[in-house]
Amino acid sequence: MNDIQQKIHQWLQHHRDDGIRLLRRLIQENSTRGNEGKAQAIIIEKCRELGLSLDIWEVDINEVRSHSFFRCDRHDFSGNPNVVALWKGTGGGKSIILNGHIDVVPEGNENDWMFDPYGAHIQNGKLFGRGSTDMKGGTVSLLLAIEALKTLDIRLKGDVIFQSVIEEESGGTGTLSALVRGYTADAAIIPEPTNMKLFPKQQGSMWFRITVKGKAAHGGTRYEGINAIEKAMYIIQGLQQLEKRRNERITDPLYDGIPIPIPINIGKIQSGTWPSSVPDVAIIEGRMGVAPNETLHEAEQEMEQCLKQLMEQDEWLNQHAPKLEWFGGRWQPGDIEIDHPIMKTVETAFQQVMGYLPMIEASPWGTDGGILSKGGGIPVVVFGPGTTELAHDANESIVLDRVFEAAEIIALTMIDWCGLEE
Amino acid sequence: MNDIQQKIHQWLQHHRDDGIRLLRRLIQENSTRGNEGKAQAIIIEKCRELGLSLDIWEVDINEVRSHSFFRCDRHDFSGNPNVVALWKGTGGGKSIILNGHIDVVPEGNENDWMFDPYGAHIQNGKLFGRGSTDMKGGTVSLLLAIEALKTLDIRLKGDVIFQSVIEEESGGTGTLSALVRGYTADAAIIPEPTNMKLFPKQQGSMWFRITVKGKAAHGGTRYEGINAIEKAMYIIQGLQQLEKRRNERITDPLYDGIPIPIPINIGKIQSGTWPSSVPDVAIIEGRMGVAPNETLHEAEQEMEQCLKQLMEQDEWLNQHAPKLEWFGGRWQPGDIEIDHPIMKTVETAFQQVMGYLPMIEASPWGTDGGILSKGGGIPVVVFGPGTTELAHDANESIVLDRVFEAAEIIALTMIDWCGLEE
Repeated sequence: MNDIQQKIHQWLQHHRDDGIRLLRRLIQENSTRGNEGKAQAIIIEKCRELGLSLDIWEVDINEVRSHSFFRCDRHDFSGNPNVVALWKGTGGGKSIILNGHIDVVPEGNENDWMFDPYGAHIQNGKLFGRGSTDMKGGTVSLLLAIEALKTLDIRLKGDVIFQSVIEEESGGTGTLSALVRGYTADAAIIPEPTNMKLFPKQQGSMWFRITVKGKAAHGGTRYEGINAIEKAMYIIQGLQQLEKRRNERITDPLYDGIPIPIPINIGKIQSGTWPSSVPDVAIIEGRMGVAPNETLHEAEQEMEQCLKQLMEQDEWLNQHAPKLEWFGGRWQPGDIEIDHPIMKTVETAFQQVMGYLPMIEASPWGTDGGILSKGGGIPVVVFGPGTTELAHDANESIVLDRVFEAAEIIALTMIDWCGLEE
Repeated sequence: MNDIQQKIHQWLQHHRDDGIRLLRRLIQENSTRGNEGKAQAIIIEKCRELGLSLDIWEVDINEVRSHSFFRCDRHDFSGNPNVVALWKGTGGGKSIILNGHIDVVPEGNENDWMFDPYGAHIQNGKLFGRGSTDMKGGTVSLLLAIEALKTLDIRLKGDVIFQSVIEEESGGTGTLSALVRGYTADAAIIPEPTNMKLFPKQQGSMWFRITVKGKAAHGGTRYEGINAIEKAMYIIQGLQQLEKRRNERITDPLYDGIPIPIPINIGKIQSGTWPSSVPDVAIIEGRMGVAPNETLHEAEQEMEQCLKQLMEQDEWLNQHAPKLEWFGGRWQPGDIEIDHPIMKTVETAFQQVMGYLPMIEASPWGTDGGILSKGGGIPVVVFGPGTTELAHDANESIVLDRVFEAAEIIALTMIDWCGLEE
């Protein structure tokens, strides 16, 4: 352990309570879509305290609408800003973006939680709460890394651009807005919950909605109608087959440990208004995974083709075509070489802190990394302290030790990548 | 055609426009559950005009709660009364209940309607609108029959008890309340939409709700969760098999023309809150048909047994039992002999008016008839002018000629059953 690393390590140990307090405050502000403002206020306060140059703005749809990656059904951003905080380098070094999203998914069925999803309860070294793992824990690692370096008076040559964005869970309009605003860098780290693994490749994904028509009738003469739920089940079974076919094609060894590299998730179904009526419409909503080496458009076409085949095999659907829409969330896949310099830098820092080499895998989910890499040409590594399996789940939690380990790794990465001003 | 029949026939012909106007007004008042008041006001106005003795009351749950047939999840009846109108006989005759429900099911997807569901549009001799067939058309037949007899100064020996009840579509609390209030008779006619057939037997039915648990996860790692929608599909497939087994047992020739005598209708499904999360709970609601010769309790037990078997064959469900609830709607099956005197009376009246014998079938759906017969010992014939296939459907309509034919048949039935005071 060299001298600087030791100082950072000690600083993090001494400020453990402060870091936990910050994370708890962030979790206690429910920042589901449309409610990001209060959690962002905590981020802004912290960045001010760190002496960073702040850029706070509400997304203007008109400024992002023309970008080919734009896909957003939200109209009102008032009171829920994006935040970028710049730590200007002394010059001559490589810059880095540290990107975290502040939005969280809804808490689901509250009865499945052991603790209040927004209570930030701590037990056995774990902090419980919606957003703990995905990804306020990662964001706190970023802020701790910056704070450690700044407090220890370590100066970097390259710029550090910290971004706390909205809308990641709905398709990345926050990060896209930062990109369109001109923020770029020589590399980016996104501390999404990777279980401390490095993800040089990320699955893309898109949300879809399929509206299936039936024919209403009285339940007692249900044979006079066509049950939209039964037709929706037929479509879902077809999508399960499509998922199987698509995943059989994935041969990238980075996906070896992942049961379903590019899942098709059926996330919602809604049909019917009356128990004793045959429902005349069913709406399925879900998420289609997109392989790092395919385009969103290719994946879209494959699903359209699948629906066409399902229609051909069903007399009713053939006459009453299901409607396929791509709405809301839309995450570009991302892809850098395993031996890219930023990968090497993070790997080295990881080994310095943890004493062993990190696992490298392909991410099973999309992140804002695709927007930065495919949209901005910025090489992205996704690496963070949270637990993949707990993201979006009831009883989401994070092991607090990981938050501080990740902070140390990111701090060393910044020094190596941006360069130390001696 | 005897003299009285001719007079009734002519009266109905001369008052065709009045009858249609009354039916249109009733349809124009959307009387879905909780909104029955305005349509009942039209009924009350008409009964006053006819000089009937009115009994108008709001259902008091405390007065019906102890009845073994009681099953109701509605608490507020204010402003939406039950109506009974008595035409007292001169004495010495048999009494008859004429029962129609004023509530209608929701209109469903409005885009599937050619006309405004509450516009009461007339085209090619048909009147379109929610409730036209189920069963405001039938109720108008009853009122026309009474009006014809009263206007023609025909006096009956037995009492005629006209009932316009709420809650039929949700399980019959309106009719149950009238029964508990003491209204009984020697027979009853319910003009539900039978396509002018006579139904001496009626299918019972019950609403059920099955809550299926899953395990939430991020859609990108959906294999870490258990999709409640997939488990719900497994349950639905099991219910489809149960329906098949139950219907194979039905051998009553009255059901010969009916593809599925006692259907299990899946009327609603609701699961998930986020396209890229694995949903952790799915709720299925539906309606189980009950054969005239079985009890509601027997049918309940058979479904419980079916769910138990499905659980045993699925590891997850075995550990996470689906919850089965019987809620809301609950219709007793009904059953009288084909050669019961009231059947003979209606058959004879039918033949007098139509010139041929009516078709006799078993009803594919429950009615309030089960409450009157099993609850009150009142023999019930279900016979009405509406079209079975259009009940609860988009573009529900009724052939106006049938309304007047049914009125004439019911008028003759009343004379024959209650006896003519010469």
